[in-house]
Amino acid sequence: MANMYTVYGMNASGNCYKVKLALEWLGIAYKWVEIDILNSGTRTPEFLAMNPNGKVPTLALGDGNFLPESNAILHYLAEGTPLMPRNRLGRARALQWMFFEQYSHEPYIAVARFITLFLPPDHARRAELPRLRERGGQALRVMETELTRVPYFAGEDYSIADIALFAYTHCADQTGFDLAPYPKLRAWLARVRAQPGFVPMDA
Amino acid sequence: MANMYTVYGMNASGNCYKVKLALEWLGIAYKWVEIDILNSGTRTPEFLAMNPNGKVPTLALGDGNFLPESNAILHYLAEGTPLMPRNRLGRARALQWMFFEQYSHEPYIAVARFITLFLPPDHARRAELPRLRERGGQALRVMETELTRVPYFAGEDYSIADIALFAYTHCADQTGFDLAPYPKLRAWLARVRAQPGFVPMDA
Repeated sequence: MANMYTVYGMNASGNCYKVKLALEWLGIAYKWVEIDILNSGTRTPEFLAMNPNGKVPTLALGDGNFLPESNAILHYLAEGTPLMPRNRLGRARALQWMFFEQYSHEPYIAVARFITLFLPPDHARRAELPRLRERGGQALRVMETELTRVPYFAGEDYSIADIALFAYTHCADQTGFDLAPYPKLRAWLARVRAQPGFVPMDA
Repeated sequence: MANMYTVYGMNASGNCYKVKLALEWLGIAYKWVEIDILNSGTRTPEFLAMNPNGKVPTLALGDGNFLPESNAILHYLAEGTPLMPRNRLGRARALQWMFFEQYSHEPYIAVARFITLFLPPDHARRAELPRLRERGGQALRVMETELTRVPYFAGEDYSIADIALFAYTHCADQTGFDLAPYPKLRAWLARVRAQPGFVPMDA
């Protein structure tokens, strides 16, 4: 019997939600350990021994190894499953959109969400919101353009790229992003929600 | 005969340098098309047709397909070569460090370099430098910690993770980062420079 995975994560984090969506889709049993990152839960010596970069999610593989970085975890879990595209170009496209997500999407859309939902209304970081919304809007437009060509980000089939991009896109409208101008994107969100094993984010 | 690759890149960009290092190591012939990103070379209709996200590097595969995102390009080129770790955990580690590079390293060390080298000395963005140097220094410390355990970022062997992290680490000392406190990191930089096909960055 394979070792059981343990996810060290925070339910309100989209990056952690990605791991949950993949495990649920794949029907893999796992334990979830909730880490309170707002109260330095990723800064303890125990946590830093698992992940010296001090971030959730971190996946305990059950054999003594720990894997951080949400999109690296998705790729690891997807190897040999239908969540990984079958051809070389499809695999490259999946990673293209996963790196896009971490560089051109998450730093704007997830950070805007963090500032809006988790910081006090008078916090100085609110000044960042106009720039974050402009850059995040740009990411949504790039996604809409791609979805005029293909139903899913790696091509014809649902993959880990869709999971990575769904995590913070599906709730962007709760923190100041208007999804009305993006009909392809809204149709894609609905296709992701219709996937087997889909669970809502527990925020 | 395989189609010839064309790299749309900028010589002074570390993200583009990654692609060059991989192609040279693999001994794959390619064409290089220099794009002047400082003069909106990635904003032309022709460029946006290749990559709607408007960034270099973008790799033309020679069959009509275009692949953006430096680390997705590295992964694509490495499939089936010794630059890709042979076991599942090694492949996950490579991606772990490549996502670390794009999220926790490049936005600080590469951006500090951009502000220092490419913006006028009185530019308002200089105010960002103290924060960028602090966060970039944190990334260097995480790398030093890992290199006390392993010689390369995916484990025992040189891989695309080392190429991804070398791109902006090797020149960090030119833009205000002190590498003296990181002996393991400096020894790793020397091991990368000793790789077959190594070429310096043409900055």
